[in-house]
Amino acid sequence: MPQKRIGKQTVRMVCPPSIEGHACVVGKKEGEGPLSSSFDYIGDDSYFGEKTWEKAESHMQKQALELAADKAGVTLSSIQYIFAGDLLNQCIASTFAERDRGIPFFGLYGACSTMAESLSLAAISIDGGFADTAAAVTSSHFCSAERQFRLPLEYGGQRTPTAQWTATASGAIILKEHGQGPFVTHVTTGKIVDLGIKDANNMGAAMAPAAYDTLKTHFEDTGFLPTDYDLILTGDLGMIGSDVVIDFFKKDGIDISGNYNDCGLLLYSKEEQDTHAGGSGCGCSACVLTGYILNGMRQKRWNRILFAATGALMSPTSTQQGESIPGICHAVTICNSKEM
Amino acid sequence: MPQKRIGKQTVRMVCPPSIEGHACVVGKKEGEGPLSSSFDYIGDDSYFGEKTWEKAESHMQKQALELAADKAGVTLSSIQYIFAGDLLNQCIASTFAERDRGIPFFGLYGACSTMAESLSLAAISIDGGFADTAAAVTSSHFCSAERQFRLPLEYGGQRTPTAQWTATASGAIILKEHGQGPFVTHVTTGKIVDLGIKDANNMGAAMAPAAYDTLKTHFEDTGFLPTDYDLILTGDLGMIGSDVVIDFFKKDGIDISGNYNDCGLLLYSKEEQDTHAGGSGCGCSACVLTGYILNGMRQKRWNRILFAATGALMSPTSTQQGESIPGICHAVTICNSKEM
Repeated sequence: MPQKRIGKQTVRMVCPPSIEGHACVVGKKEGEGPLSSSFDYIGDDSYFGEKTWEKAESHMQKQALELAADKAGVTLSSIQYIFAGDLLNQCIASTFAERDRGIPFFGLYGACSTMAESLSLAAISIDGGFADTAAAVTSSHFCSAERQFRLPLEYGGQRTPTAQWTATASGAIILKEHGQGPFVTHVTTGKIVDLGIKDANNMGAAMAPAAYDTLKTHFEDTGFLPTDYDLILTGDLGMIGSDVVIDFFKKDGIDISGNYNDCGLLLYSKEEQDTHAGGSGCGCSACVLTGYILNGMRQKRWNRILFAATGALMSPTSTQQGESIPGICHAVTICNSKEM
Repeated sequence: MPQKRIGKQTVRMVCPPSIEGHACVVGKKEGEGPLSSSFDYIGDDSYFGEKTWEKAESHMQKQALELAADKAGVTLSSIQYIFAGDLLNQCIASTFAERDRGIPFFGLYGACSTMAESLSLAAISIDGGFADTAAAVTSSHFCSAERQFRLPLEYGGQRTPTAQWTATASGAIILKEHGQGPFVTHVTTGKIVDLGIKDANNMGAAMAPAAYDTLKTHFEDTGFLPTDYDLILTGDLGMIGSDVVIDFFKKDGIDISGNYNDCGLLLYSKEEQDTHAGGSGCGCSACVLTGYILNGMRQKRWNRILFAATGALMSPTSTQQGESIPGICHAVTICNSKEM
């Protein structure tokens, strides 16, 4: 068997699985942003016809998966594994979304890195020969996240300038053993990196060291240069974190700014939508990837991208106990051809 | 390549990975129970030298992994993936335990099924050719779980007779591509099953349908009979849930009671320890498996076991919103030989 493991943290797919379907469902605010035309469904309000925000989030996940399966031309019953997760305590957005599906389910927690984590494991399960069809799904919801992580919305608390806006969004991908692509060719699994940042209102800065670590390791492991990619996309570092990543690489003598962007910067309009440092939440990188980015790859706007979703692995409890914020970043290479 | 996928939900390992190391760390109460002699480390109190119960839980995970790696004769830096999860919001027991390790990390949430979920994915990553060494780790802590899921301990609330006792325990397994075994030969990944039970103080009953579903599917997929196993072990259904599983099989004309047991029944003494319906928590099945069971397999007390850990995928929020409790069960076949 050809060598799958390359370097310290990277694996190469021998038969790169194909992204046969991808879809995203977003809230009203996201639908008013610059990526509006790339979304499959834009909700009218924050409830999606449900009675609570948590149920609305499950609703989005359900709908995103159904749309992705439809686009891939697969029935839900032919999906052999679902890899899913979200930000809510005990990941209830995912478990309640999938409880009636009858599909083998692996629950994940990777905070905002979950889209890359789920895509990594779906690719591993397929290229390993354990499935021919697998799904990767994630979501976040501004209202369910605010009340869980911060304050009741009714309280009307002010947000700091470094704070990011949790996206109301879900993204789903159907990965198949064979297909027309785009293809998942490499996976670099992140280690936890914690440089001691304690400000839960500045998560971009807390996650940036993990993003830098994974990207740097990816380039070392694979021998690829940043310029080999048409786009290097972190998610979601926002304004502050993405500048930190660019600066870290600059110190190594590498300028990645030419082909680098961040999902948290892309989702909202800086001028017209008041999201302070940009977007965040599992759903942010998920909807940017499954809408704008993968649509753009199908139109050959980009042919080789590195999708590096980042997560902040703290909880309100760990913050209250004085802990710093551990970050993680998982990177996935997606190419229009099977060879990077 | 030989067929890995058999039936609806089961995969067979072509080169069954070997459990090269396993270890468990438990609290004082667990150390006073009937499995006392099987634990690698028993804490003196609920703090393990830390200032909070959440940090104590991380401490147990750290220690369990170090002990397992030591027994396997591997350095921590040679572990290529850690699959870990726990019950705490945002899985902080796992992320804080692993944040200084520098090991690629996949965070999971499978509630009390996490030991089987993590072992499944570790086996898939190795047999798929993506790693030669991977770790599966999980934990729970009575005090951190009570205050998160139920009431502050200081409140002194009374527990119902159907309630289970969250184990203060952590278990870790080091899986390697080659070794002396025991071996992971089959993995049956569960789907979410929800029959509408809403009593969060009777989780055994809520999880039992998922256990029955996965076990039944496992036997259908593989063609194995319950009697082919020396031990079928669910975890953690406790007294009520395990009776339900036996009853469900009885209705199919199958008596599994002869070689069936449940981790929640094994961990505590019914007569001497007041745990009501038995043990629960990710750490319960984890410490029973990595102590009593795997030690027993090494002593050839059992040669073929089916480890079927169960999880209740609700949260306090979903319960407050009137939702029922979705259950899941993942089953892993562990054999002393590479062939079942």
